[in-house]
Amino acid sequence: MSTGVTAAQGWRAAGIHCGIKRSAPDLALLHSVLPCTAAGVFTRNTVKAAPLVITQLNLRQSAPSAVVINSGNANACTGSQGLKDALLMTKLAADELDLGPAQVLVCSTGVIGRPMPMDRLREGIPAAAAQLSTDGGEAAARAIMTTDTRLKFGEATFDAGGRTCTLGVMAKGSGMIHPNMATMLAFLTTDAAIEQEYLGAALRRAADDTFNLLSVDGDTSTNDMALVMANGMAGNQPIDSDATGSGFEAALRRLCDDMSREIARDGEGATKVITVVVSGARDAADARLGARAVVASNLVKAAIHGGDPNWGRIVSALGNSGAAMILDRVTLRIGGVPIFSGGSGLAADLDSLRRHFEGDEVMIEADLGLGDGRARAYGCDLSEGYVHINASYTT
Amino acid sequence: MSTGVTAAQGWRAAGIHCGIKRSAPDLALLHSVLPCTAAGVFTRNTVKAAPLVITQLNLRQSAPSAVVINSGNANACTGSQGLKDALLMTKLAADELDLGPAQVLVCSTGVIGRPMPMDRLREGIPAAAAQLSTDGGEAAARAIMTTDTRLKFGEATFDAGGRTCTLGVMAKGSGMIHPNMATMLAFLTTDAAIEQEYLGAALRRAADDTFNLLSVDGDTSTNDMALVMANGMAGNQPIDSDATGSGFEAALRRLCDDMSREIARDGEGATKVITVVVSGARDAADARLGARAVVASNLVKAAIHGGDPNWGRIVSALGNSGAAMILDRVTLRIGGVPIFSGGSGLAADLDSLRRHFEGDEVMIEADLGLGDGRARAYGCDLSEGYVHINASYTT
Repeated sequence: MSTGVTAAQGWRAAGIHCGIKRSAPDLALLHSVLPCTAAGVFTRNTVKAAPLVITQLNLRQSAPSAVVINSGNANACTGSQGLKDALLMTKLAADELDLGPAQVLVCSTGVIGRPMPMDRLREGIPAAAAQLSTDGGEAAARAIMTTDTRLKFGEATFDAGGRTCTLGVMAKGSGMIHPNMATMLAFLTTDAAIEQEYLGAALRRAADDTFNLLSVDGDTSTNDMALVMANGMAGNQPIDSDATGSGFEAALRRLCDDMSREIARDGEGATKVITVVVSGARDAADARLGARAVVASNLVKAAIHGGDPNWGRIVSALGNSGAAMILDRVTLRIGGVPIFSGGSGLAADLDSLRRHFEGDEVMIEADLGLGDGRARAYGCDLSEGYVHINASYTT
Repeated sequence: MSTGVTAAQGWRAAGIHCGIKRSAPDLALLHSVLPCTAAGVFTRNTVKAAPLVITQLNLRQSAPSAVVINSGNANACTGSQGLKDALLMTKLAADELDLGPAQVLVCSTGVIGRPMPMDRLREGIPAAAAQLSTDGGEAAARAIMTTDTRLKFGEATFDAGGRTCTLGVMAKGSGMIHPNMATMLAFLTTDAAIEQEYLGAALRRAADDTFNLLSVDGDTSTNDMALVMANGMAGNQPIDSDATGSGFEAALRRLCDDMSREIARDGEGATKVITVVVSGARDAADARLGARAVVASNLVKAAIHGGDPNWGRIVSALGNSGAAMILDRVTLRIGGVPIFSGGSGLAADLDSLRRHFEGDEVMIEADLGLGDGRARAYGCDLSEGYVHINASYTT
């Protein structure tokens, strides 16, 4: 069945094991039969991995048709050799697909600071190209996983000027996830025709409200990016404005939101998804600051992990966020139950709060009482399992 | 023996159990026979606990002579009742010590959002006053502990215009510790005479280089502060400048540095102290940003906990810090061994790196190669124990 990145017309994908990892799939290839308009959002870490640099370059100079992605090695902090290796990956894929190297985008995820095992990729990329198929979406989604425990992909349809178009997505991410793009890899493929400028703006808006409000551990990686590519196979009038793009943008936001939730749920060691909604902030930027600060707080995350109804840590995290705040105006609800209002705690039922924290889904709502700013952030609890995974990642 | 806050002349202290906690000491009182010049540095969390508000007020309007400190309850997020309770604590102490209430400073640490059990303090404060003694420094240090596992106090002598003066300190802190004052409680008491304005400037400088570069878990508390009080009993010419204050300032920095290291060592669940030295930064502010980002990174902390020589996470954390950085100029040393230089990893001995990470003291040095900025930050590893402690703090 065609799923994820192969759900839309004209898209093929493959996912194989080429030997970067010991046994799990570690190499994915995406290919569109037509050149695409494309846009990306990228990590704000000043240390940028080699493939990210090459992808940014290629996005500026070509209509890309393919993406090559490996897991198991980040090709980051690898100096000029790393840039050569990333370029060679695009060349190897381009040769197989009769493209120019600049038409191939490249992404890597995995351990930082190790040379890329290029012998594996010299053999692997042709092998992946030979496997490309219109039902390869799931295999590709599997090949980009690192510490992920669950496959992350999906699709949606939308109307564009009377044509039904499809948007597919796959993503990976379970650690080193924190606001401001970095966070993860996500690949969105559509058969709609979309103007490049509008496509980039729509992706940035969607990412700001979803991926950039996602936190697993407060670290922003060197490698991560979200790419969207549109090949126009659906034959619609090209989408170029909010007016013609409303269907697309709704689908884009929904899939980005779904992937964010899935990544939070799959956070390393996570046992619960935490949703934080900040409303009544002075503006949207303040709402984002507040929501991020709460989902990123180790103390909040550990309290929720233990089912400890220690709501003071949430108020304290809001106070640290940088968002404008007048404590007397803040109302805090947990699981729908008012807990804090008018500057002090309410005589809440701490047992019901404890039961809410013990569930799989924790909902924290803070109304700052100052304005119209609103944001929703996803995160996860901090468990002994997170420490265990990250105490032995490379060994 | 006179230690810590009672090491200097004219200082008495007490630490008792008054019933805020189930059985451990929870109330400390400090008293100087003469009124003091005093200064403080305070949390930058916008949510400020009631006692902190009262202490800031009293520092502006009086020459304080006493400090009352409780553990077990933070008196934070407690609304107007919290302010009344903090004021009543100053009044109760003032009555016992024949002072005006504004001459008493007040601090609390513990759970956020619970009403202060004032009946315990009505009995406890007179009981503590009755116990005041010149060798009460250790008992006071014990009474301000929360999840601390080790007593933290010390003293130093210095010369001021030919007079030998003494400076004592006690501190608490093991979780909710992060740069920008918050972080902890610290009390410094001296018998030197020191002008108020100089005293405040010296404390801010020392705190910026010590307490504000300390991170246990990235959360900045609502309550924390460092106070320094000088009663002039040593009879020196009042210190009022860098020229006359060099001996004092060296002692102040040393004790603040000692307390910072001790707090890092006692970080909740910590098994190692991590020291991060960033040099060659564009300026001192950038050096602080870089050093803080590395000690605060969950991924770095977890890797060190597990003895995983995953140095890429350190470079990535520097890249996230906001400090100006050109990757090719960065040199990274761990335990004195060069690991990364010229944009890529060196063929380092990862086994020796692993052994260094397995020790009690981890030393990370990053030279950014851009300027003269230098800073040193302390932190600790992230262990399963941290999660365990913080998953059940209030229950």
